[in-house]
Amino acid sequence: MSHIAYVNGRYLPQRLAQVNIEDRGYQFADGVYEVMCIWNGVPADYAAHVVRLNRSLKELRMAAPASDGALRLIIQEVVRRNLVEKGTVYIQVNRGVSPRAHPFPSPNVKPSLIVTAKHGAGPPESVAEAGVKVIALPDLRWKRCDIKTVGLLPNTLAKQAASEAKAFEALLHLDGTVTEASSSNAWMVTPDKTIVTHPTTNSILGGVTRATVIKIARDAGYEVEERAFTLKEALKAKEVFLTGTTTFVMPVVQIDEQTVANGSPGTIALDLRQRYRAYMDSLTEAAWNA
Amino acid sequence: MSHIAYVNGRYLPQRLAQVNIEDRGYQFADGVYEVMCIWNGVPADYAAHVVRLNRSLKELRMAAPASDGALRLIIQEVVRRNLVEKGTVYIQVNRGVSPRAHPFPSPNVKPSLIVTAKHGAGPPESVAEAGVKVIALPDLRWKRCDIKTVGLLPNTLAKQAASEAKAFEALLHLDGTVTEASSSNAWMVTPDKTIVTHPTTNSILGGVTRATVIKIARDAGYEVEERAFTLKEALKAKEVFLTGTTTFVMPVVQIDEQTVANGSPGTIALDLRQRYRAYMDSLTEAAWNA
Repeated sequence: MSHIAYVNGRYLPQRLAQVNIEDRGYQFADGVYEVMCIWNGVPADYAAHVVRLNRSLKELRMAAPASDGALRLIIQEVVRRNLVEKGTVYIQVNRGVSPRAHPFPSPNVKPSLIVTAKHGAGPPESVAEAGVKVIALPDLRWKRCDIKTVGLLPNTLAKQAASEAKAFEALLHLDGTVTEASSSNAWMVTPDKTIVTHPTTNSILGGVTRATVIKIARDAGYEVEERAFTLKEALKAKEVFLTGTTTFVMPVVQIDEQTVANGSPGTIALDLRQRYRAYMDSLTEAAWNA
Repeated sequence: MSHIAYVNGRYLPQRLAQVNIEDRGYQFADGVYEVMCIWNGVPADYAAHVVRLNRSLKELRMAAPASDGALRLIIQEVVRRNLVEKGTVYIQVNRGVSPRAHPFPSPNVKPSLIVTAKHGAGPPESVAEAGVKVIALPDLRWKRCDIKTVGLLPNTLAKQAASEAKAFEALLHLDGTVTEASSSNAWMVTPDKTIVTHPTTNSILGGVTRATVIKIARDAGYEVEERAFTLKEALKAKEVFLTGTTTFVMPVVQIDEQTVANGSPGTIALDLRQRYRAYMDSLTEAAWNA
């Protein structure tokens, strides 16, 4: 089946979905994005993704390409046309097309909006059951990682390095302090069973799944602490895991050549994964309004 | 006159010059670029720009989109078709079009190449005669500024802030140490007339004009030291100036609300600008082979 993309007002076969070379997303990474998980045809945490998208736009003083209502209709239409049951929707907003120059273009320049969809959401369950390896890498990114921009080159380089090391992800650290992974948030469980993840500062992207998992964990009676932790602490942790839009909750069993605890997926991570899956399975059409 | 752009094998009117939305330059800032100054129809420092482009590609393990010879023919054709006498040529290479995923695509994916040209090279001479104001801003960029990637969002934000402060540029500093400006290199002259500019580490882009000006300055008998300097030193400097592909040598007379020395363009900066202009005026057709 040919994928259908929404590009600045038109629904097009993806291979014909094009943008001008002077779109600022292309020449300056002057754009932001969101990836939502579609589960049984409906989105997870739709409202939270839209809130984050609008925050990214505001931080960069970029105009919204459409009202929240119009954006929802477009996203629903892309999901519908691509017959996505389990998959992802990708939304990108750029500052628009304007002759190349660093400063913002005239406010009359309309932002660009593209929406695409894909089938398939994340790795199969067997990956989580086995647990994954990660590699530790210095975090080379800029100082505003809280904004979800398309300036993802450092993330792609980290993910490529992970891939070459046959690892699932790269755990990024700033001088030994773990920030997050290349496309997911990083967590550990201390020996006293406290769940720890980096607070939402400028050094990490405030993951939508991260926030949902914090809520699910607290509702289940776990202690969750939002504080920075070091790579050293992670290596001695009871458990390490990742969260992300398509990763859900992913147990980490190895960091570089060292096993985490006994090398098996942690019980808390597996419990949170199961609870997160239950949350996903419970989503209904109302998720579009949530 | 309609601008003509080269896009992946075709010469097109610029408004029709498009790329697929899954070009990795668009979704990941997974691309590099060069801007060359065209002066009397020929390029300044052509060979140095190609060397830097190839270095950027190599650092990112990206394949070259064309041989150096073919690239030259394309650039010459774009300059010719756009009748550029004094202006710029823009060259962008991305890792190619591939379904969105962080790791590098298959090596079979061909890199994208676009080349565009513009009339007009830099500000009028009167700007340099008056000298310019800059503002000082924290350097928010990633840790590999030595690679000339299209991940320019932090640069555009800095330039926009400068523009709103009615300044020519933003002087970026890492905890007080000046790295460079948002799209030019930064220099100062010490009280003992030593010319100082940041060494070519990962914290700055090794400017082609920077290298040429170092050579011109040394040939003229000036002492040039490549070392980091602080914002504090710059504020007490005898002179401050910028260099860049279209900036040439630009005297800075004000940093935020403080004047540099007596507030007039420095004599060394003006001398270097004159020498650089003479160098540009001396370029011939041979510059394409240089």
